[in-house]
Amino acid sequence: MTVDGVREIGVGMLGYAFMGKAHSNAFRKIAYVTWPPPLTPRLVAIAGRDAAAVASAARRYGFERSTTQWEELIADPAIGLFDNLGPNDMHAAPTIAAAEAGKHVVCEKPLGRDADESYDIWRRVAATGVKHMCAFNYRFVPAVRLARELIDAGELGELRHFRGRYLQDWGDTSEKVWRFDRAAAGSGALGDLAAHVVDLARYLVGEIETVGGFVRTFIAGREVDDAVEATVEFRGGAVGTIEATRLALGRRNAFQWEINGSEGSLYFDMERLNELQVFHADGDRARGFKNVLVTESDHPFAEHWWPPGHIVGWGDTFVHELHHMLAVIAEDTEVTPHGATFEDGYRAAEVCDAIVRSSESGRREAVAYRITQDPGQVLEESG
Amino acid sequence: MTVDGVREIGVGMLGYAFMGKAHSNAFRKIAYVTWPPPLTPRLVAIAGRDAAAVASAARRYGFERSTTQWEELIADPAIGLFDNLGPNDMHAAPTIAAAEAGKHVVCEKPLGRDADESYDIWRRVAATGVKHMCAFNYRFVPAVRLARELIDAGELGELRHFRGRYLQDWGDTSEKVWRFDRAAAGSGALGDLAAHVVDLARYLVGEIETVGGFVRTFIAGREVDDAVEATVEFRGGAVGTIEATRLALGRRNAFQWEINGSEGSLYFDMERLNELQVFHADGDRARGFKNVLVTESDHPFAEHWWPPGHIVGWGDTFVHELHHMLAVIAEDTEVTPHGATFEDGYRAAEVCDAIVRSSESGRREAVAYRITQDPGQVLEESG
Amino acid sequence: MTVDGVREIGVGMLGYAFMGKAHSNAFRKIAYVTWPPPLTPRLVAIAGRDAAAVASAARRYGFERSTTQWEELIADPAIGLFDNLGPNDMHAAPTIAAAEAGKHVVCEKPLGRDADESYDIWRRVAATGVKHMCAFNYRFVPAVRLARELIDAGELGELRHFRGRYLQDWGDTSEKVWRFDRAAAGSGALGDLAAHVVDLARYLVGEIETVGGFVRTFIAGREVDDAVEATVEFRGGAVGTIEATRLALGRRNAFQWEINGSEGSLYFDMERLNELQVFHADGDRARGFKNVLVTESDHPFAEHWWPPGHIVGWGDTFVHELHHMLAVIAEDTEVTPHGATFEDGYRAAEVCDAIVRSSESGRREAVAYRITQDPGQVLEESG
Amino acid sequence: MTVDGVREIGVGMLGYAFMGKAHSNAFRKIAYVTWPPPLTPRLVAIAGRDAAAVASAARRYGFERSTTQWEELIADPAIGLFDNLGPNDMHAAPTIAAAEAGKHVVCEKPLGRDADESYDIWRRVAATGVKHMCAFNYRFVPAVRLARELIDAGELGELRHFRGRYLQDWGDTSEKVWRFDRAAAGSGALGDLAAHVVDLARYLVGEIETVGGFVRTFIAGREVDDAVEATVEFRGGAVGTIEATRLALGRRNAFQWEINGSEGSLYFDMERLNELQVFHADGDRARGFKNVLVTESDHPFAEHWWPPGHIVGWGDTFVHELHHMLAVIAEDTEVTPHGATFEDGYRAAEVCDAIVRSSESGRREAVAYRITQDPGQVLEESG
Repeated sequence: MTVDGVREIGVGMLGYAFMGKAHSNAFRKIAYVTWPPPLTPRLVAIAGRDAAAVASAARRYGFERSTTQWEELIADPAIGLFDNLGPNDMHAAPTIAAAEAGKHVVCEKPLGRDADESYDIWRRVAATGVKHMCAFNYRFVPAVRLARELIDAGELGELRHFRGRYLQDWGDTSEKVWRFDRAAAGSGALGDLAAHVVDLARYLVGEIETVGGFVRTFIAGREVDDAVEATVEFRGGAVGTIEATRLALGRRNAFQWEINGSEGSLYFDMERLNELQVFHADGDRARGFKNVLVTESDHPFAEHWWPPGHIVGWGDTFVHELHHMLAVIAEDTEVTPHGATFEDGYRAAEVCDAIVRSSESGRREAVAYRITQDPGQVLEESG
Repeated sequence: MTVDGVREIGVGMLGYAFMGKAHSNAFRKIAYVTWPPPLTPRLVAIAGRDAAAVASAARRYGFERSTTQWEELIADPAIGLFDNLGPNDMHAAPTIAAAEAGKHVVCEKPLGRDADESYDIWRRVAATGVKHMCAFNYRFVPAVRLARELIDAGELGELRHFRGRYLQDWGDTSEKVWRFDRAAAGSGALGDLAAHVVDLARYLVGEIETVGGFVRTFIAGREVDDAVEATVEFRGGAVGTIEATRLALGRRNAFQWEINGSEGSLYFDMERLNELQVFHADGDRARGFKNVLVTESDHPFAEHWWPPGHIVGWGDTFVHELHHMLAVIAEDTEVTPHGATFEDGYRAAEVCDAIVRSSESGRREAVAYRITQDPGQVLEESG
Repeated sequence: MTVDGVREIGVGMLGYAFMGKAHSNAFRKIAYVTWPPPLTPRLVAIAGRDAAAVASAARRYGFERSTTQWEELIADPAIGLFDNLGPNDMHAAPTIAAAEAGKHVVCEKPLGRDADESYDIWRRVAATGVKHMCAFNYRFVPAVRLARELIDAGELGELRHFRGRYLQDWGDTSEKVWRFDRAAAGSGALGDLAAHVVDLARYLVGEIETVGGFVRTFIAGREVDDAVEATVEFRGGAVGTIEATRLALGRRNAFQWEINGSEGSLYFDMERLNELQVFHADGDRARGFKNVLVTESDHPFAEHWWPPGHIVGWGDTFVHELHHMLAVIAEDTEVTPHGATFEDGYRAAEVCDAIVRSSESGRREAVAYRITQDPGQVLEESG
Repeated sequence: MTVDGVREIGVGMLGYAFMGKAHSNAFRKIAYVTWPPPLTPRLVAIAGRDAAAVASAARRYGFERSTTQWEELIADPAIGLFDNLGPNDMHAAPTIAAAEAGKHVVCEKPLGRDADESYDIWRRVAATGVKHMCAFNYRFVPAVRLARELIDAGELGELRHFRGRYLQDWGDTSEKVWRFDRAAAGSGALGDLAAHVVDLARYLVGEIETVGGFVRTFIAGREVDDAVEATVEFRGGAVGTIEATRLALGRRNAFQWEINGSEGSLYFDMERLNELQVFHADGDRARGFKNVLVTESDHPFAEHWWPPGHIVGWGDTFVHELHHMLAVIAEDTEVTPHGATFEDGYRAAEVCDAIVRSSESGRREAVAYRITQDPGQVLEESG
């Protein structure tokens, strides 16, 4: 079926809370903010554990129906894209089932609760041939994409340093949420925040070869880590740090990173996500970091939005992300390099696991990517 | 008709370009971002001069139909809210006609091309008894609302200074747009940018009593002003400046203002619209301007959005604005004080006109608000 | 007499408080920070009203002797440079007397308490042929000099806007200081702060032709103004605002200015005096304001100081200023254009007086520079 | 001998380049900026290898004589304070000799080229009973001292995180300087920059127990490291990172650190050394990091300088540092806690050495402070 010449794709969503709102909003906006959309999302069904709550979410976001059985989404032929926003322990089974039922899949990060689970999800989904994207949405921040484009264009020269830290401060609480539950979450700041840092590090600087560091739990009785501290070496020769914490008071969503190369530097802070600081060693007498408001007509994703100077919000990054997924499906192209595939999700998990191993061993640990048996899968490396 | 227990309101929109996109997006998001919405907007019809373009906009934004005759919107009983986003010379007739047809009305700023026209729109619309809002959307920036709340709570003490400037830089162009056409726009930076400054000055500091200053056209052959410079006196005793320009290179949407009171100060820049800088003279040894990320759960409008630290975009201010209008209609309450009424639109025009008079006379000019003949209309002052 | 091949100059100073410390420190540092100094300052004598206090200051700063009679400085043949740091009502007589005694003179700003007095000081001193500098030290901030050099090099194109404001917050006090006394100070924020803004406006943008605005006293019983608000027109076509206040809570020494030209923009804040923000409309995709740390080896005054990145302090601007004066004396060159002459001091006073006239008349006022009777004096204009 | 009731102390200085200028300037300013000074520095003699250059420096900075034999300084009874600013390989012998000759000693950081040498210097100097200070001048930045005072007052609660990085960018050069020579310098960014980070980490957060990380040389042929990356654990439970590099383009002197505690956070950047960002979790609705301009009258060191809002320069930190040393000598008090003793210099070296060991071993390394044989020396720990 087509709407205004654009084919529809049926969306089935698992999860209706924070990420459910973010993704639903994105699907609804894609239909008119990006124009014409690559595919028109049809919100077929949404699944969740609480029948009343998920029914309310369905009415709110415009899904045609709701269910407490995610298996119903798998069985529904009207659904062409399965979007898994459940807690981490709900990533594997539904996502694999959806892929095996021929549906394209999006899965929230972290892909699995550890590298084993992530690897399994990746390999089994990859085997089905569907499109798969791990929802590292920060790749779709305009300033992050611009950073990637500047790096790709060689404007930074040889990369030498990456310093990434994701600082939040909501962790000093006695509230019970699934993110503090080991069985549900797998880890704490590691999978929730450090995984984002790892993913952007890989996206912007390249593959990580070794890590050294540790995880730390500060809050008594907490099952998962509150903070992660690590040093990293990249295959390309750069070195740096990866940090994450839920205990940096005053930092609400401060995913900050800096990259230094032989020709220039970049700095970014997610709390000012419309800005990228750029230094070029161009010999200009008036040299210094430029504060680039990434809203110009020649900037990434600007085509969808407002005139220059009118900033986008955090929620809009999901529009970019899911628009990309729809375009990949519509045009049968690759999720990578700008989207994170499940392989990227797995690789981030390997880096996170290596930090845990280092925490336990006290040793610098190599990131050991596994050999894939899939001869058709081109892997950069095999550990 | 009700959707999920919420009554619908039919929306008719005039204009489909920049503001058409901004308002359409807002109406669509209100239906699920604010939950439950006060009224569910039903996008009945959109009008514009170019039949193909407006038809395309209707498909894109989900209007049921399009027309090149705005009079059709007035005649359509399914439309309960008329949203006028046309060029300035299209504000008066359609808006008045809609109100006289019993429709609630929203009109983009500036209300009219000068105080005469604005006054006429206001008085004729007010006489109908419909709800009317002049779309000064920046009142609905969370940081601006927070500023108002802090001022209302007395945290700044007696207000002494307001310094407002709206700096853009797209004016050095040979492009022909209606905003450079005197007949269509009435004025340049004055009505487009300075009017916003005037409105926030009035919203945050109070009524303006005198102005002195001038308008200036830099670009040869341009019919309207490129820049405005003015000093102002407020009734409450504060003094300050109001400036606007389309020629401040590097400033893309820099609506910056500072307020100093006897107990504290505030600073804001629209290019970082999620932030408010707040100084309290509280005697703390570690004193200084706080950079408040206005995304906390106890901050204005946060209920509609994301967890703290996740910023909103410029487009989201329209969600707040039109949500307010729908709530006013649904609950039969007042647009004022947080929304700008047509009276506010008129008053902003009087201030702008006074700047023009001062520019011509070389004298400080009193802002002469007109006596209304409407005995039921309580006016703060009469000139 | 020479020290290490450098001739000495005897310094006589009037005033020993805030500015006395700043200037004494500068003279002492010039002897070794700038190397070789143009002249080696010999601190001959310091004068002030309180015998004990001035004697203590002499010991502290290394003056050979102290006196309560400034006339003794005039009479002392060992003094070649008279540095007048007294209250404003002590500027005229001693400065004129020193010049007429053949001493070069530095006088703190404002030169006189109004344009009449300033004119008289200028004309009488100029008639003697000595070097004269009005101590507008902010011309000697490295970032300000860099700004001037960038403008001189045409990097900003045609100048269109100047927005200058000098914001302090110590005015809300019941303390009695001479700066609140009309007889001693002449004016309040006007001569103290706005005069600085006027001087940098003239230094960076050019001559001011008209002003409109007013002065305002907020604190009951205060004899002088607390705040100044003005719009300005420059001879070169630029327009803008000049503001000053002692009541901007949280702003301690915030002399902020912005200049917009047809090719670029500059922004500066004295609270971060080592930084200049520079925007070039160079079409770079990564465009934005650069934050230039003005400490590079090719930056103004850097030769005297530390390696790049090591900032100077506010007190160091006096080193630059007085070094300039010594070089002018040593080499018999001109104080202008980088130093402010007494003519500049007079001209700033004319602009300030025009603001006062505008405040009284309610009219835009022309800045009426006086015809000089000195045929040898080349004036740009004559009112 | 006394000057104005203040006793003199004779200063002998080794080294006349960058640090020679910084320390000479400080000694000269102490005599009148701090008033009355604890002791009046008399610049007796300066030593250096190049006879002509050191003689010129003596004339420039006002030393009574110069020499190419540092031993002459040791032998001179007029010298009571020996200030060693030579290259790292010149720290041990002269400093020990001076102390053994009964002179108080200041030695530039790093104290020795490694922990062994540093330990030896410390123990041998400590045995003499003279006052000793390792010139970690950044402890004497007003904002750093304020940070310490806020932490001491408990305003940050329990400390959880320290993130320190010292970023410079002058390392990508083919220039030959002693800092690239292993024999002279011992290490590169490690001893030069990371040592500063380690010292402030210890000063602000406490003793470091373990480190993991590595050093890295990017520039081919360079004998010393260009960069350091490490994670750290503090005895008090905090965790974090320590980084240093000479290859962060655009960062000129960016010694940035952040501390997060259970009640608040602090952030600092040496390029804006007059500012401290302070977050208090005080529940204020308008919460956020305050930008504190550390120039208030109740702020550290402000008594010596200008009115609030008038910033100090990098060079002024040496005034504070050496003033402290003179006060310690004059009053026979302790260098610690605000000044770094040679023990602090040694301890910083142990941390740096542990990073080197970790770099070689690939293991997290304990910082093993040595047992002292001095029973009179109270040590917090013994490894």
